[in-house]
Amino acid sequence: MTTPEFTRHPNPAGIKRIAVLTSGGDAPGMNAAIRAVVRTGAQQGIEVVGVRRGFSGLHRGELQVLGPRDVANIIQRGGTILLTARSRTWRSPEGRAKGAEVLREWGIDGLIVIGGDGSFHGAYYLQEEHGIPVIGIPGTIDNDLYGTDHTIGYFTAVETALEAVDKLRDTGASHERIFVIEVMGRHAGHIALDVAVAGGAEEVFIPEDPKPVESVVKIVKESVTKGKMGSIIIVAEGHPGGAQAVADALAEGTGLETRVSILGHIQRGGSPVSSDRVLASRLGEAAVFALMEGEKGVMVGRTGGGITYTPLHETWEKRKDVSRDLYRCALSLSV
Amino acid sequence: MTTPEFTRHPNPAGIKRIAVLTSGGDAPGMNAAIRAVVRTGAQQGIEVVGVRRGFSGLHRGELQVLGPRDVANIIQRGGTILLTARSRTWRSPEGRAKGAEVLREWGIDGLIVIGGDGSFHGAYYLQEEHGIPVIGIPGTIDNDLYGTDHTIGYFTAVETALEAVDKLRDTGASHERIFVIEVMGRHAGHIALDVAVAGGAEEVFIPEDPKPVESVVKIVKESVTKGKMGSIIIVAEGHPGGAQAVADALAEGTGLETRVSILGHIQRGGSPVSSDRVLASRLGEAAVFALMEGEKGVMVGRTGGGITYTPLHETWEKRKDVSRDLYRCALSLSV
Amino acid sequence: MTTPEFTRHPNPAGIKRIAVLTSGGDAPGMNAAIRAVVRTGAQQGIEVVGVRRGFSGLHRGELQVLGPRDVANIIQRGGTILLTARSRTWRSPEGRAKGAEVLREWGIDGLIVIGGDGSFHGAYYLQEEHGIPVIGIPGTIDNDLYGTDHTIGYFTAVETALEAVDKLRDTGASHERIFVIEVMGRHAGHIALDVAVAGGAEEVFIPEDPKPVESVVKIVKESVTKGKMGSIIIVAEGHPGGAQAVADALAEGTGLETRVSILGHIQRGGSPVSSDRVLASRLGEAAVFALMEGEKGVMVGRTGGGITYTPLHETWEKRKDVSRDLYRCALSLSV
Amino acid sequence: MTTPEFTRHPNPAGIKRIAVLTSGGDAPGMNAAIRAVVRTGAQQGIEVVGVRRGFSGLHRGELQVLGPRDVANIIQRGGTILLTARSRTWRSPEGRAKGAEVLREWGIDGLIVIGGDGSFHGAYYLQEEHGIPVIGIPGTIDNDLYGTDHTIGYFTAVETALEAVDKLRDTGASHERIFVIEVMGRHAGHIALDVAVAGGAEEVFIPEDPKPVESVVKIVKESVTKGKMGSIIIVAEGHPGGAQAVADALAEGTGLETRVSILGHIQRGGSPVSSDRVLASRLGEAAVFALMEGEKGVMVGRTGGGITYTPLHETWEKRKDVSRDLYRCALSLSV
Repeated sequence: MTTPEFTRHPNPAGIKRIAVLTSGGDAPGMNAAIRAVVRTGAQQGIEVVGVRRGFSGLHRGELQVLGPRDVANIIQRGGTILLTARSRTWRSPEGRAKGAEVLREWGIDGLIVIGGDGSFHGAYYLQEEHGIPVIGIPGTIDNDLYGTDHTIGYFTAVETALEAVDKLRDTGASHERIFVIEVMGRHAGHIALDVAVAGGAEEVFIPEDPKPVESVVKIVKESVTKGKMGSIIIVAEGHPGGAQAVADALAEGTGLETRVSILGHIQRGGSPVSSDRVLASRLGEAAVFALMEGEKGVMVGRTGGGITYTPLHETWEKRKDVSRDLYRCALSLSV
Repeated sequence: MTTPEFTRHPNPAGIKRIAVLTSGGDAPGMNAAIRAVVRTGAQQGIEVVGVRRGFSGLHRGELQVLGPRDVANIIQRGGTILLTARSRTWRSPEGRAKGAEVLREWGIDGLIVIGGDGSFHGAYYLQEEHGIPVIGIPGTIDNDLYGTDHTIGYFTAVETALEAVDKLRDTGASHERIFVIEVMGRHAGHIALDVAVAGGAEEVFIPEDPKPVESVVKIVKESVTKGKMGSIIIVAEGHPGGAQAVADALAEGTGLETRVSILGHIQRGGSPVSSDRVLASRLGEAAVFALMEGEKGVMVGRTGGGITYTPLHETWEKRKDVSRDLYRCALSLSV
Repeated sequence: MTTPEFTRHPNPAGIKRIAVLTSGGDAPGMNAAIRAVVRTGAQQGIEVVGVRRGFSGLHRGELQVLGPRDVANIIQRGGTILLTARSRTWRSPEGRAKGAEVLREWGIDGLIVIGGDGSFHGAYYLQEEHGIPVIGIPGTIDNDLYGTDHTIGYFTAVETALEAVDKLRDTGASHERIFVIEVMGRHAGHIALDVAVAGGAEEVFIPEDPKPVESVVKIVKESVTKGKMGSIIIVAEGHPGGAQAVADALAEGTGLETRVSILGHIQRGGSPVSSDRVLASRLGEAAVFALMEGEKGVMVGRTGGGITYTPLHETWEKRKDVSRDLYRCALSLSV
Repeated sequence: MTTPEFTRHPNPAGIKRIAVLTSGGDAPGMNAAIRAVVRTGAQQGIEVVGVRRGFSGLHRGELQVLGPRDVANIIQRGGTILLTARSRTWRSPEGRAKGAEVLREWGIDGLIVIGGDGSFHGAYYLQEEHGIPVIGIPGTIDNDLYGTDHTIGYFTAVETALEAVDKLRDTGASHERIFVIEVMGRHAGHIALDVAVAGGAEEVFIPEDPKPVESVVKIVKESVTKGKMGSIIIVAEGHPGGAQAVADALAEGTGLETRVSILGHIQRGGSPVSSDRVLASRLGEAAVFALMEGEKGVMVGRTGGGITYTPLHETWEKRKDVSRDLYRCALSLSV
């Protein structure tokens, strides 16, 4: 192998100045993505402007030019240095018109939006209504976007939840107690499944397969018979009733000591793990390249080892299913 | 300095066989304490018997001899290999009589109890009623025992809570949100104060100083005026109404976006930090020495750099106050 | 989606009893793989026998039956409960004949070997010479096996190295020093590349592209000109001269304060991260299924989202290249 | 308990403007100390000026006023935002005269120096020669300053080293290998002792008690006889020959597989643990109060639960011994 030389990426679109923002719920690795956008821009002779507070800051004109040093030492930080917000104004055509005006004033040739499907909706309408090329970068801990194997922040969220599960198992095993643990995932069970397998859980409840919470009673009773010390049950927040419903069923059905733990927002924070930083670095670069190539209205993703472009509307219209194999594996290994 | 030679500790009490148990809520470092008891016993020619499931297992006769290899590779593990439980039977004189009988059958010269004040009560009555020498080792994350600067598990609990606070601040700052975080501490604000200072919180609520939750409104409003991005409020679970009451007051008084996070049982688990392992190692050794010296009915503690013995009943009758200086410091540095 | 029901996997090979061992350098996640093998066996009505100390223990007859409870609470542990060793005896036909005899005595229908290419060689010859079906599970932190996107232990090793890099950057930036950090990888630069991208390194040296260490001087000089505070250089141990050669070149060429840090064996230890636990769980199950299907002499791997079988000899004959794209990305984002 | 009200600390010295710098090797928690100095100043109506790059930056005039927002969100960060350096110029009277001139130009009434004994020497001479009141805050991972139970950064360094030891034990136990681990401590064995006890080491070598490295051979041989899997030996870098000498003796005396791991600079970095943040917060506040009270030429420390002032020259002239009790405990519990 030889050392890669620096090469100028083809720029048929003649991009000179782009903007980048983070929007919706924050996710660990967003800073790594911002850094990659800014530095790829610098490498390619493109000026990058950062927008603060997402779409909300866009129509208020909170923009500033970002150079390579402005993104130094942020790759390891949780949150987003550009801040994020949910904007009501943006939902109106007038709000978006104002945002488009700001972008034109700043001479922006394309906008990169780091966020989830809500943010991509906002970006999509901006492009549809005002012709400004937008590129989406999937940044959400939920991993629920079609068009990429993983979203930025997902790996860190799983790891954070898993660390909590490991701690709860310590105390659960010592007390021979059952812990019902609620992880994030309003519409998708990705986090729950990975955490269930990696955490050695007895049972897992995901939104994709709503099932009677009473089913847990039989499983836990068998587990006690087998001599297991303490049990871990994982519940995605989007399963009907959440962790509390499962715990209530358990309490009634077994009489065993049960504790509920709702992990909540800690899953959003923390220094991103390596997989999220690497993914964010690759996708940040890919987003700039996509604009240069003249792409618009697509999300850059990583599927099966390569960069892919998916029309923004497909990212929410199509569905990325959880792995049925992993679901089976989760249930099977708790024997 | 010269290398310490091994010496036999004076054994005027003629101790030959002792038992050790963990009781009440588990705490990180209990395993390190068990290990120290077993190995000090082995060094001093004293046989150590482990009791499983605390007092509950004692009156059921769940005992087994432990050698140095049985406690290998456990110093870093959370929870307790001896398991723990809360025993109703033990609260009756009959239950304790049964336990005393088991100890006599096993030829036990003294019992070491690792736990909090509830466990010490149980130990105290056993000694009072049946003359079996007992020694307490302070093992509880709450740090609320008189007679020792710190209890085993406290340092780890603070660290775990602090890591959660750091993560919540990442996401809180990105959204410019307020997080109200509830940490453990039903009767004592030790954890809350340390976490508040170390986590850079705006305000802290502790059981020792119940105050109107509305007081937080003014502080947060000022904080917004100062341009702070996101705020952290720490509430000990024992403050009236807990975190939810504070969050409700904030929502009503400021209209700002507020999130509640109840850290819960994760604070009990996890590999113990070094301070807890070192403290547990010292106190485990000290407990065996105390029995050999003929001590009974005392808790071994560490106060101002030395080992101290405190009568068991004083550990719950007297009060270890939180540091007023630290409380002041917490409030002062959030300027 | 519906809940997966338990189904018996087809067993045309009529497997009734299998053995499992770990061999070569240990890797985080090996315990999760052992657990998956044992529990899948239990689910499928197949008895699983654990071999201690790899091939070395095999020819000495260190075997024992493992049930589901024997692998409880190990999914989160580093190292391997079956121990591992490098065996000289195994390299001789006589050694392997002795091992085969032991397997026959125990009535073993197939052997699962968790390890790297050295271990797969040992397994391959056992099958060639004695007809015992073997299945390999890729367990090595180096990620250098053809036939799987990732090997068990790789993700944890990268994460551990990255945590060290983050710490070194703290102190490097404060002192405006250069850190040259050596990570594992005698023949492959996988760890080095991921760590370089995720750690925001200035430059990276990998065995696949030996280059003059003096090249680093220009890069660091430019970096100083750009006003960067502290620099991180990543060197895989297999690059000629390792980290020391790079540091020497830097010291001579720049006169700047340079520090070398060789991360070493800490990269092998620690609780496995979720990705390694999930991969190990999937591959452990897949290995048992492979034997049942009558497969032999293959490694189970995961490629592009599915389970694949690769002939053992291909795993070391063919080469899994590092990603040239990632290499470019590493160099490009350090602008 | 009542809520502490804000009170103005007595200011008989009439302090209006102070400077703060970090010097020598960086230590985790220095940022928390800077934050406490700045915010206590703000609370007390005193302006705080930050000096970049220690004494080196002082005589070059690298000063800037710091307000409460300038130190927001730094309490959890490793390193020092003020940067640090070792200054040759400062060792000359001319260099210090230049520094004194800068301080007078800026109207500084007192200087707070965060560092170790080298830094305190520099501060001491500045005060002696130019009459500028100086206060030292103990910030060094080595914990080798007389006048305080612990120094800022010590707890984090021990924790970082311990995490590495835990990882090495995973792999050491799996291979039944011996690991000889070198931790920081050129002149003091504090880190080594705490890590040895908390890490369950077989043996520990500290600078305070140089002993024949061959002594380790007997201990390891006994340990093998006892059936221990893998051994951990801790060596402070200041013990003659360091870890390598011990490993060489072991290799020669036992023929067992031995690995050396030198932890190095990772012990300086990382987010400070709670104990360091709390200590830094308390001492930062105490340093400002000391200047206000008219103190000069002292280090603020924390001894036995209270704030103490120790003349700077005593901090290096007097010796803080390692705990002989802990040394004994380390050796005793490895039975």
